[in-house]
Amino acid sequence: MAEHFLSEALQGDFQHTIGPYADPVLKVDPGDTIVIETLDAFGGKIPDEQTKPSQIIKYPNPLNGPIFVNGAEKGDTLAVDVESILPRGPQPRGTTCLPPFFGGLTSTNKSPSLQSPLPEIVRKVHITEQDVIWSDRMRFPYEPFIGTIGTSPELDSINSLTPESHGGNMDLPDVRPQNRIYLPIRAPGALLFVGDCHATQGDGELCGVAIEFATKTTIKVDLVKNWTIEWPRIESDEFIMSVGSSRPMEDAAKIAYADLISWMEKDYGFDRYDAYFILSQIGRLRVANMVDPNYTIGARIDKGYLA
Amino acid sequence: MAEHFLSEALQGDFQHTIGPYADPVLKVDPGDTIVIETLDAFGGKIPDEQTKPSQIIKYPNPLNGPIFVNGAEKGDTLAVDVESILPRGPQPRGTTCLPPFFGGLTSTNKSPSLQSPLPEIVRKVHITEQDVIWSDRMRFPYEPFIGTIGTSPELDSINSLTPESHGGNMDLPDVRPQNRIYLPIRAPGALLFVGDCHATQGDGELCGVAIEFATKTTIKVDLVKNWTIEWPRIESDEFIMSVGSSRPMEDAAKIAYADLISWMEKDYGFDRYDAYFILSQIGRLRVANMVDPNYTIGARIDKGYLA
Amino acid sequence: MAEHFLSEALQGDFQHTIGPYADPVLKVDPGDTIVIETLDAFGGKIPDEQTKPSQIIKYPNPLNGPIFVNGAEKGDTLAVDVESILPRGPQPRGTTCLPPFFGGLTSTNKSPSLQSPLPEIVRKVHITEQDVIWSDRMRFPYEPFIGTIGTSPELDSINSLTPESHGGNMDLPDVRPQNRIYLPIRAPGALLFVGDCHATQGDGELCGVAIEFATKTTIKVDLVKNWTIEWPRIESDEFIMSVGSSRPMEDAAKIAYADLISWMEKDYGFDRYDAYFILSQIGRLRVANMVDPNYTIGARIDKGYLA
Amino acid sequence: MAEHFLSEALQGDFQHTIGPYADPVLKVDPGDTIVIETLDAFGGKIPDEQTKPSQIIKYPNPLNGPIFVNGAEKGDTLAVDVESILPRGPQPRGTTCLPPFFGGLTSTNKSPSLQSPLPEIVRKVHITEQDVIWSDRMRFPYEPFIGTIGTSPELDSINSLTPESHGGNMDLPDVRPQNRIYLPIRAPGALLFVGDCHATQGDGELCGVAIEFATKTTIKVDLVKNWTIEWPRIESDEFIMSVGSSRPMEDAAKIAYADLISWMEKDYGFDRYDAYFILSQIGRLRVANMVDPNYTIGARIDKGYLA
Repeated sequence: MAEHFLSEALQGDFQHTIGPYADPVLKVDPGDTIVIETLDAFGGKIPDEQTKPSQIIKYPNPLNGPIFVNGAEKGDTLAVDVESILPRGPQPRGTTCLPPFFGGLTSTNKSPSLQSPLPEIVRKVHITEQDVIWSDRMRFPYEPFIGTIGTSPELDSINSLTPESHGGNMDLPDVRPQNRIYLPIRAPGALLFVGDCHATQGDGELCGVAIEFATKTTIKVDLVKNWTIEWPRIESDEFIMSVGSSRPMEDAAKIAYADLISWMEKDYGFDRYDAYFILSQIGRLRVANMVDPNYTIGARIDKGYLA
Repeated sequence: MAEHFLSEALQGDFQHTIGPYADPVLKVDPGDTIVIETLDAFGGKIPDEQTKPSQIIKYPNPLNGPIFVNGAEKGDTLAVDVESILPRGPQPRGTTCLPPFFGGLTSTNKSPSLQSPLPEIVRKVHITEQDVIWSDRMRFPYEPFIGTIGTSPELDSINSLTPESHGGNMDLPDVRPQNRIYLPIRAPGALLFVGDCHATQGDGELCGVAIEFATKTTIKVDLVKNWTIEWPRIESDEFIMSVGSSRPMEDAAKIAYADLISWMEKDYGFDRYDAYFILSQIGRLRVANMVDPNYTIGARIDKGYLA
Repeated sequence: MAEHFLSEALQGDFQHTIGPYADPVLKVDPGDTIVIETLDAFGGKIPDEQTKPSQIIKYPNPLNGPIFVNGAEKGDTLAVDVESILPRGPQPRGTTCLPPFFGGLTSTNKSPSLQSPLPEIVRKVHITEQDVIWSDRMRFPYEPFIGTIGTSPELDSINSLTPESHGGNMDLPDVRPQNRIYLPIRAPGALLFVGDCHATQGDGELCGVAIEFATKTTIKVDLVKNWTIEWPRIESDEFIMSVGSSRPMEDAAKIAYADLISWMEKDYGFDRYDAYFILSQIGRLRVANMVDPNYTIGARIDKGYLA
Repeated sequence: MAEHFLSEALQGDFQHTIGPYADPVLKVDPGDTIVIETLDAFGGKIPDEQTKPSQIIKYPNPLNGPIFVNGAEKGDTLAVDVESILPRGPQPRGTTCLPPFFGGLTSTNKSPSLQSPLPEIVRKVHITEQDVIWSDRMRFPYEPFIGTIGTSPELDSINSLTPESHGGNMDLPDVRPQNRIYLPIRAPGALLFVGDCHATQGDGELCGVAIEFATKTTIKVDLVKNWTIEWPRIESDEFIMSVGSSRPMEDAAKIAYADLISWMEKDYGFDRYDAYFILSQIGRLRVANMVDPNYTIGARIDKGYLA
């Protein structure tokens, strides 16, 4: 059970697409721990509120990886335990902004209008291990999670802004410390990519940008052999969750709930229609993002109902 | 501050459309309390699991009303405090089912396929003031709320299955005891319609039917003069929430968040873009229904952030 | 076979909602012809390019009707032959505009953003029976059709801006002279509403407003007893077409094609899957509107394939 | 102006993803002609109606390419003239089918339900240079086009079933002989991929599969230096067309019309809002596919209006 350190220096060039074509930066065994120096979604290039991301950022969401997991084969599942996410870098170390033509309350390049963009406002904030200090009068709790985490597709390479069945830019706050994330393995070695951590985020990531920050993130990776999943899944002490990413948003919800029913059937012995009925009464949905090329929703059931 | 009793007998014919064309069954003053005998969504016509709703229900969601509120004028807002929701009727008094071509994981008449319908399964369940007894091994907490509540449009009449800007069939669990619902007034007297109570319901009301039951529901109605709202709003001790209903689902989320920003601007003194930023970090979404002719989402912010 | 004249004077108050609650302005027999003086979508209130519709129009799309058809009963179908559509009124008699927050390339009240509206530009144009004269250098052919035509729902009343299964504001250029429109009858007397004629219109009615104009429109109405349809249908010399209206747009296409398959099965003897295959190879779609509360698409097959 | 022959043998392994990671099979100069032996969408593996694609096809839509165009640089545009598309291979050389959980009138893996799949029916048909012979009684005209054509993204690799801004699986009948297709160049050499020809296809490609066939397709490629486009465009003798691919379908229409307005502004001197108005009156939409991971719509204007 080795511990690896994937520093910025070891990473070298960060990745902007999740696929099988880049050389691994690290090879690990199942059960190993990896401490990762992630960059923020802007690659650390927004030092102050006068710097406009649209003018200097060519590709957002730089990712660490790919991490090759020895023994991982197509059809297996990768289990990632998020152990901790700690802020790093000089203050104000948090960044958010209103990017032109990106976000939940603006037209975008995928749903264009002839209207003018919103003003490109940048906000820099202090982040401690307790708080995000929005202003003299307002603080948000420090509730960090990994915004982008995914395994490689078999043939395709998906940019780091897009969530899909491989995971990717889900922007789902449940990918947080103490939770376990399951990801489908489709390429040899799984090829894990990680980055884009958020110090906190609201449901839907409304303006398109959370409190982006650089971190020291510790994960443990493991393999579940001969367990094939179609979409990401999450397990915490309290619940199991399936995650769907699609457009329109209802399709993300359908994917998540349908996968959760399938999980309940196959691994917990439920009748399909009984699972459908039960989720209709006590299922819960989290809208992760309403801004990315696919929208992401997690559907969960409390473990108390699974016994 | 009178208390009125809108019994089944006083109601007489229940309503299946929310509009200005039916005669009021009751006239009340602002501040009055109304105890309402609501029917379940099937009008009480499903006594057992052998009775198929598709064969005997012509119109679902029978509503009590219209209730005329003296002094209510277009441009005012109706405030409805939900005081209590108690079950009534013989056991098993709860009903849920899989209706053919209706629900979240089936094709529907609004999104048809050539596939066969799911089996039309009916489930009858016991409901107490503590529990919904799903089976010998599983109980759900009794968390009752009003599924359908709305005020009349000015000219149109909207069927009792459809949520829109007037409220209607939102299927939103936050319309529950101790919360206050604000509804736009567009017709003289407001013309309030209420019904379709649920003993519990999951996010999205996945199969299209919650635990439907007949109730004795107590509400208090009041007027907010000269406060015009475009969409329903909810206030609890903990939060304020705006409610959007539309298709596709992302548009319900956009409506809800945009209305919440507007509310924060006008009534709480926020700068528009600061509200946009803040909701991006600590806003919360509830997917109420993903099955009705419009989908419903509530967007909320904790009151602690409004001070 | 009487001919009726539904003049502006006879109409009196124009209608802004399609439902069973207004008194008929005319009673006709099957086979009768009706000459109708329709208003333009702005009720004739935009005489020049300086008048802003958003400041003076409370309800757009004034409709003539309801026209009661003797003998029409729920479950029958109304057949409307469009015989001619002639322009009337002083020049420039055509109006189009960019309404704030309405149209295909702007955020709207159903899909809001925080962006500013587009400029509210009004254009007045001359219309002859040959041409729409857009400018000195550009003319469009005169290709008139009825933008809004529908029968009453049974209980609901649907505003004149919204297309649904009753017809309504479909903005479908195939509702034109020489074509026959079939509409479902759900209320006694059918209760036909007609208005919102367009001198020409592009696919999708992109900016939300066609070349709106007042007309003398002649139609013939007839009954098809014991033929129940779920959505509007159209028959021309060349094709049969089913019309779906929904959101998102793909659902309008699904409704239209599914209804066309059903029509081919029931009235033309096709096997269901053979119809599905054949439409996959030679079916044609018309995007009528991409701007109204529901989007409208017509799916058609050439009659040559029906023999 | 050389002519190249990209035979099956020269192609060797066909491609199933469009990206910058495969070695070019051919290098050509601007102005060169290429004769391509394309496979059908099933790689020729469906010889009869008893063979079920779901059981033997791992990846559909095999593509020829990548073809490297000398001198092509990021920011340039590739112009592809489709010269001819001829059928090849033994009869019955055309294939269509109903794939499980794929198509316009079935639930899919992107919009799942709990319903059973449609029957997996396969149809083999004779194709001549005049006709597709559907049955003894029905023939469709031979109207061949290229279903999938695209240039490489800069970093990503997009599977051959998905249309996006690079082109790809648009399934757009206007990509036909005598028309010119413009594609954005984002990788050195453009890296053109071509395949998935259809002998005919209806609007929307309803069941998800056109009349798929192997062809000898002749194209001419050329460069437009210093002309950067965001989405594919098409030019014929009669019209110019912009092509959008997205979900939901209205977003494909918005992309197409917005790009067409931009084209009219920049290259034909139109005022932006005048272009918006004019397309509202005489623009035309083609629904190419309503079945792929993104839906595709083309928006066009007749050249007569551009003068």
